[in-house]
Amino acid sequence: MLDLIKDSIKTIPDYPKPGIMFRDVTSLMQDPKAFAKTIELFETKYKDQGITAIVGTEARGFIFGAPLALKMGVPFIPVRKPGKLPRAVISQDYQLEYGTDTMQIHTDALTAKDKVLMVDDLLATGGTIEATTSLIRQLGATVNDACFVVNLPALGGEQRLNKLDIKSYSLTEFDGE
Amino acid sequence: MLDLIKDSIKTIPDYPKPGIMFRDVTSLMQDPKAFAKTIELFETKYKDQGITAIVGTEARGFIFGAPLALKMGVPFIPVRKPGKLPRAVISQDYQLEYGTDTMQIHTDALTAKDKVLMVDDLLATGGTIEATTSLIRQLGATVNDACFVVNLPALGGEQRLNKLDIKSYSLTEFDGE
Repeated sequence: MLDLIKDSIKTIPDYPKPGIMFRDVTSLMQDPKAFAKTIELFETKYKDQGITAIVGTEARGFIFGAPLALKMGVPFIPVRKPGKLPRAVISQDYQLEYGTDTMQIHTDALTAKDKVLMVDDLLATGGTIEATTSLIRQLGATVNDACFVVNLPALGGEQRLNKLDIKSYSLTEFDGE
Repeated sequence: MLDLIKDSIKTIPDYPKPGIMFRDVTSLMQDPKAFAKTIELFETKYKDQGITAIVGTEARGFIFGAPLALKMGVPFIPVRKPGKLPRAVISQDYQLEYGTDTMQIHTDALTAKDKVLMVDDLLATGGTIEATTSLIRQLGATVNDACFVVNLPALGGEQRLNKLDIKSYSLTEFDGE
């Protein structure tokens, strides 16, 4: 079953720059069976965990997070780049390879009663999910889990998230990255 | 039923600039019943139309397009800003209020056999959907329909799309911008 998912993900050599093997989940979204299986596996994993909200990160996290939220019957909360969310927000900076970036969440999106699951397409260094964890915890909500379609273990994201008490669950892994 | 959807959409006055009444669909995504009803209404409208692919535009179009594609059992194809799609792409420029922007689609995303439905959160002037229509037709696919959660009739998007032989379907409308 996981071969269905792994086989649907194309690898683009030297994108976005030489030496990078880019794992492309848009080819998974083009395969209705693989896409449906992805959401089904996430739901099976988390359906009895008391999750009250799904947070998805811009932009590919929306594509997996929104269907999962619908399937689980809980709110979908987007975490976005600055200037995209219209209501009051809080912000969190995070390090990129060169420079910094910022993510934001609506301040009224979550409360202390919420137990949140984070969703994104790919776990690399874990920087985006670390920032997202911080945003969720600043709002007083509980978050201990993140799920991904793809993990790139060589980049250490899993260990980074473990230090934040975030357990990660990935459907497939790719080496050589 | 449509009140469920309309009532879930918050209005933010003077965002992103004075005089604009911003219609905020993130509050709809936070309401699982309204969000589920949105996708259900789209599916009911298009399920017998022979649709073979759903195209969603970055980024809020992903949030509605991906669940609809899953529900209809057809591929989900993202249309994105430049530099985001890793495989070979074609591009289409379009006019903004000040300046231009560009959208891209993977060249292998669609073929002449496809009948496409476009999905976005909001129909304003229709510029993004006009560019998306052009991209889809450049790939030889058929597209005659676009659906939206919100229509802002005062901005003329529906008429603009009609001139391109695109029929639009919106779940709710707001006047006064």
